Amino acid sequence: MQISRRRQLANAVRVLAMDAVQKANSGHPGMPMGMADIAEVLWNDHLRHNPGDPQWWDRDRFVLSNGHGSMLLYALLHLSGYPLTLDDLRAFRQLGSHTAGHPEHDPQRGIETTTGPLGQGLANAVGMALAEKMLAASFNRPGFDLVDHHTWVFLGDGCLMEGISHEACSLAGTLQLGKLIAFYDDNGISIDGQVQGWFTDDTPRRFEAYGWHVVPNVDGHDPAAIEAAIVAAKQQDRPSLICCRTIIGYGAPNKQGTEATHGAALGVEEVAAARQKLGWVWEPFVIPEDIRSGWDARERGARRQAQWNDLFARYKLAFPGPAAEFERRMRGELPDGWSAVVEEYVAQVAQSGGSLATRQSSQQALNAYGPVLPELFGGSADLTGSNNTNRKDSRAVTGEDASGNYLHYGVREFGMSAMMNGIALHGGLIPYGGTFLVFSDYARNAMRMSALMKQRVIYVMTHDSIGLGEDGPTHQPVEHLPSLRLIPNMTLWRPCDGTETAVAWAAAIEWRDGPSCLALSRQGLPAQPRSAEQLANIKRGGYVLQDCKGMAQVILIATGSEVALALEAARQLTQDGKRVRVVSMPSVCVFERQDEAYREQVLPGGVECRVAIEAAVPDTWWRYVGLRGAVIGMTSFGASGTAQDLFRHFGFTTECVVRRVTELLA
Amino acid sequence: MQISRRRQLANAVRVLAMDAVQKANSGHPGMPMGMADIAEVLWNDHLRHNPGDPQWWDRDRFVLSNGHGSMLLYALLHLSGYPLTLDDLRAFRQLGSHTAGHPEHDPQRGIETTTGPLGQGLANAVGMALAEKMLAASFNRPGFDLVDHHTWVFLGDGCLMEGISHEACSLAGTLQLGKLIAFYDDNGISIDGQVQGWFTDDTPRRFEAYGWHVVPNVDGHDPAAIEAAIVAAKQQDRPSLICCRTIIGYGAPNKQGTEATHGAALGVEEVAAARQKLGWVWEPFVIPEDIRSGWDARERGARRQAQWNDLFARYKLAFPGPAAEFERRMRGELPDGWSAVVEEYVAQVAQSGGSLATRQSSQQALNAYGPVLPELFGGSADLTGSNNTNRKDSRAVTGEDASGNYLHYGVREFGMSAMMNGIALHGGLIPYGGTFLVFSDYARNAMRMSALMKQRVIYVMTHDSIGLGEDGPTHQPVEHLPSLRLIPNMTLWRPCDGTETAVAWAAAIEWRDGPSCLALSRQGLPAQPRSAEQLANIKRGGYVLQDCKGMAQVILIATGSEVALALEAARQLTQDGKRVRVVSMPSVCVFERQDEAYREQVLPGGVECRVAIEAAVPDTWWRYVGLRGAVIGMTSFGASGTAQDLFRHFGFTTECVVRRVTELLA
Repeated sequence: MQISRRRQLANAVRVLAMDAVQKANSGHPGMPMGMADIAEVLWNDHLRHNPGDPQWWDRDRFVLSNGHGSMLLYALLHLSGYPLTLDDLRAFRQLGSHTAGHPEHDPQRGIETTTGPLGQGLANAVGMALAEKMLAASFNRPGFDLVDHHTWVFLGDGCLMEGISHEACSLAGTLQLGKLIAFYDDNGISIDGQVQGWFTDDTPRRFEAYGWHVVPNVDGHDPAAIEAAIVAAKQQDRPSLICCRTIIGYGAPNKQGTEATHGAALGVEEVAAARQKLGWVWEPFVIPEDIRSGWDARERGARRQAQWNDLFARYKLAFPGPAAEFERRMRGELPDGWSAVVEEYVAQVAQSGGSLATRQSSQQALNAYGPVLPELFGGSADLTGSNNTNRKDSRAVTGEDASGNYLHYGVREFGMSAMMNGIALHGGLIPYGGTFLVFSDYARNAMRMSALMKQRVIYVMTHDSIGLGEDGPTHQPVEHLPSLRLIPNMTLWRPCDGTETAVAWAAAIEWRDGPSCLALSRQGLPAQPRSAEQLANIKRGGYVLQDCKGMAQVILIATGSEVALALEAARQLTQDGKRVRVVSMPSVCVFERQDEAYREQVLPGGVECRVAIEAAVPDTWWRYVGLRGAVIGMTSFGASGTAQDLFRHFGFTTECVVRRVTELLA
Repeated sequence: MQISRRRQLANAVRVLAMDAVQKANSGHPGMPMGMADIAEVLWNDHLRHNPGDPQWWDRDRFVLSNGHGSMLLYALLHLSGYPLTLDDLRAFRQLGSHTAGHPEHDPQRGIETTTGPLGQGLANAVGMALAEKMLAASFNRPGFDLVDHHTWVFLGDGCLMEGISHEACSLAGTLQLGKLIAFYDDNGISIDGQVQGWFTDDTPRRFEAYGWHVVPNVDGHDPAAIEAAIVAAKQQDRPSLICCRTIIGYGAPNKQGTEATHGAALGVEEVAAARQKLGWVWEPFVIPEDIRSGWDARERGARRQAQWNDLFARYKLAFPGPAAEFERRMRGELPDGWSAVVEEYVAQVAQSGGSLATRQSSQQALNAYGPVLPELFGGSADLTGSNNTNRKDSRAVTGEDASGNYLHYGVREFGMSAMMNGIALHGGLIPYGGTFLVFSDYARNAMRMSALMKQRVIYVMTHDSIGLGEDGPTHQPVEHLPSLRLIPNMTLWRPCDGTETAVAWAAAIEWRDGPSCLALSRQGLPAQPRSAEQLANIKRGGYVLQDCKGMAQVILIATGSEVALALEAARQLTQDGKRVRVVSMPSVCVFERQDEAYREQVLPGGVECRVAIEAAVPDTWWRYVGLRGAVIGMTSFGASGTAQDLFRHFGFTTECVVRRVTELLA
């Protein structure tokens, strides 16, 4: 059997994939075997990367949007010389290994993003390509293409069926992301079988409608055809979709071309038969030296990076200011003097009185912080004027001009959020994006991915309760505050006034270990006076905003718009001779990160009469109020009406709070 | 000024819309004023409906997917003769009115579905059109087109930007839903301004890629052009998109064509100016008689329904069996003998031992219940073999043959769910659809809409915890069980074995007041023996599965896969001389609906040492365990590994439970 050199290189990927899946007896061999030839051409002839330094700033980004084919990526990383060993491959899908069932963001090993939830890798890639274009527009100078890399994506039918592919790809077309090149694994198979029963799109036509460059009908097993398509795509100033006809499970003689290869080990016999068919004579996890050297990209990569290092050294000499700024931003560090800006601004806001919606306070905070943070990249899913996400220095990014700092994402909440993940992963920008809190639902799994990957993405979620009024229950979040608090690593803030908002924004910007979500009111909320100690304690997530003399009989805990209500109820209860403490809890998540001593100080175990007040489903609060306390919350959807009518209707009144407390104390 | 009759009729809608918004000082006048001419042609010349009987089974369905333009719908309903009065219009957006900010499902008043969250109305309409096609395939006979109506949708740029429009419209093309006709309000404006900055799709080309019939470039203010487009669309056996160029806020001389008309009252002056420009001389909420009579559809509607009634009477004579079945199904009633089928099946399952994944038990329940429920319409978002949503009698619905009872939705979780809402709203079918529990995120807002509209939609969510194993944290739900419990009206079940699964399925089918969600395991769970009383109590949502002699010292509460763990821990604790009660809580939501006496009986207030065990984020359980109890749950994302390794790693072991209880009792 005569096997071409290229095919042999690709077969190394195929065999590693099928063997690792077989060893784990779990996984997805079909995709890696189907896309191996495409990957071989891309990785050996086009991908600009350095396995010796997986975090080189100007590397090409490679995203496996069809993440179930993780063994493809692991095989490529291993073969090209990343620190991913054969032992790692042997530990595929085992607890604690570096080779999880789906790729998990691992910058030290070349895994650019976590994928698996279909369509999101593609949207991450759109975000990465946008970040590249924006940073290039900001930092490149004539003769100095400091930022100049491609973003490559592999994707399958599943990604294309998901709605998010529409959102992200439509916007990628508008933004003319010419350095984004996607490979569609058109194998005609999804889990339920042949896709023609449920997926009959004319995909090239669809992507042409988005303004993409489309290369239809490429034979995904013909290296020359793949090569030609890539070369054509690289010349475009529009994003490219290369549609590759492939055979899923290519090489498995009895199962290839069927869904049987998709999500299960091929079985010992079929693996043996595939070995024979592929002409692969080596044992599992044995890669002969000449194959290994054909894949090894370390020397080439080191050379390329050295060239770039040289370019950057010259850039530094020519443009020391921008060079320093570029380094700072790519490292994700905040500028010198940042803390002073925050301190000064918070102190200033703390002095102001009056009443302002926290969405407006949020805009003011952006106006204060934005000018010193050029990396703060805003946007909204078509609710700019409602989310107040724009700031005085906002300038829109467009297809023609990427030097701005604001994106009109259109009505694309999920796409926006997954793009923000890609932007954060790319580095150099801190993305924030707005929508109504209720529509966090549309974006929810991307928010989860921000949290899973611990990315600094800031969600600005306005209209945070029934307080938004007349738009009614479709627009009124009731379950969303407790629901977002459930996501591990997600930091939710619900400030009660301008000061808490200013602190929350600073905390979100400073928090590098995960995303933050700011839940902001549509309606005005009164500014609360605070002592210096209270002011300092806001950033601990929960603190005593008003105390009584002696040990409290009752503790009222509230967030956001309900803090003023708690204070008013406390005033009345105090008049009635009760000893009441009011705790403002803008961030339960942050409060839970405090040491036990502080938490005990705020919520002393001895006080069991506790009432939490929040215009949301109560589940967050039982942990604090226990079996003897109460929660004044929402137990149904909201309704259409004025905010005032609604708060009264749903029992958020001083009388209701006072009555409930009095009952509990009785 | 010469104003055509048609324009005058349309102006009645425009003026009602701008006046109602002005009166409420809140709302969206732009869309109704822009789409009034289209609505006039459709409602006066094509819509087959009877305002005198808004629930006539064979009426055309009209869906306002751009639901913010609710005043358009209210004006149309009022003018054509539905029971929606001028007083109702005057009460627009006030608490308790029938004219909420966004249309809220109101079958007595002709509001077919709740819309507002963009894109979902369109997907509802796809579901309605599919239901029509399926029922026609089942019930029509030569000469008897018993089921034969159109589904009409209005939609805007926002709907088209949302990803769900891709999912639903792609599938509508595949399914050849020829009676679905959509009108695209192509006004070039969204909230952030002129859409060309963020929405540059060639929409006709996009929809052609889906296999739709597209009528591009229709002048949305020219009745003749609209008429011609409708006539052409009605002749198609593919879904149609009629692209209408319109001017948002048409008639407001200074604001039309801008986003200023989108979401706020026009202002007194502009309203006056619009009156002048439109040549409308009447006061707010005054409709002259000849305009009113031009709109009144009651007589025409009654005549049409009478014709259909006559047809149905003849059908009944010719096909009494199918006729009775059609009536039963359209009424949403379960067949005679249903309870006996359930009782017998549950009794049978209760006798069986062994171990089975609840997703498999679910399939067995479907096999038992399906044959007596032809309306039970299954499907999966491309995970049929994993969700086990197919049954022995499943037969796929295709574009060519809609007589089946199963749909391969493709990888379209959100589209599937919103389509199921449309199917349930249409009537005649009980839809259920599957995906992995973690991907409920993708569908979340549609699940919320099922709950808000109280529709009988059944979500089959398998792979319900880290117990799914190697696929890793992207596929392992941790926050989803507590998160779905937060949605008002959503009934979540997480059964612990085959018997609880059989009861849960029956409960979901019988529950007409909202959606149910079945969270099912990937891995095998042992069958639990039960007394007759315990068996009967499953449907109360929570019950004592194992008790001790005398008053318990500790209560273990568990769901699903953790029930067996609780029992094992109880066994050891009992050996250690502790008095332990084990409560199985397959549905917290249903348990909460029980009277207090029953709840107190299961969880006596006197026992404060309570430990809840669930492989999920704990927030659900604090309400039951209080400040003195504990929850053994997940506080982080999961990981990739075998289920066994993961349960051990995350502390779901007998030792951990025993230790925790012992600590609490100490």
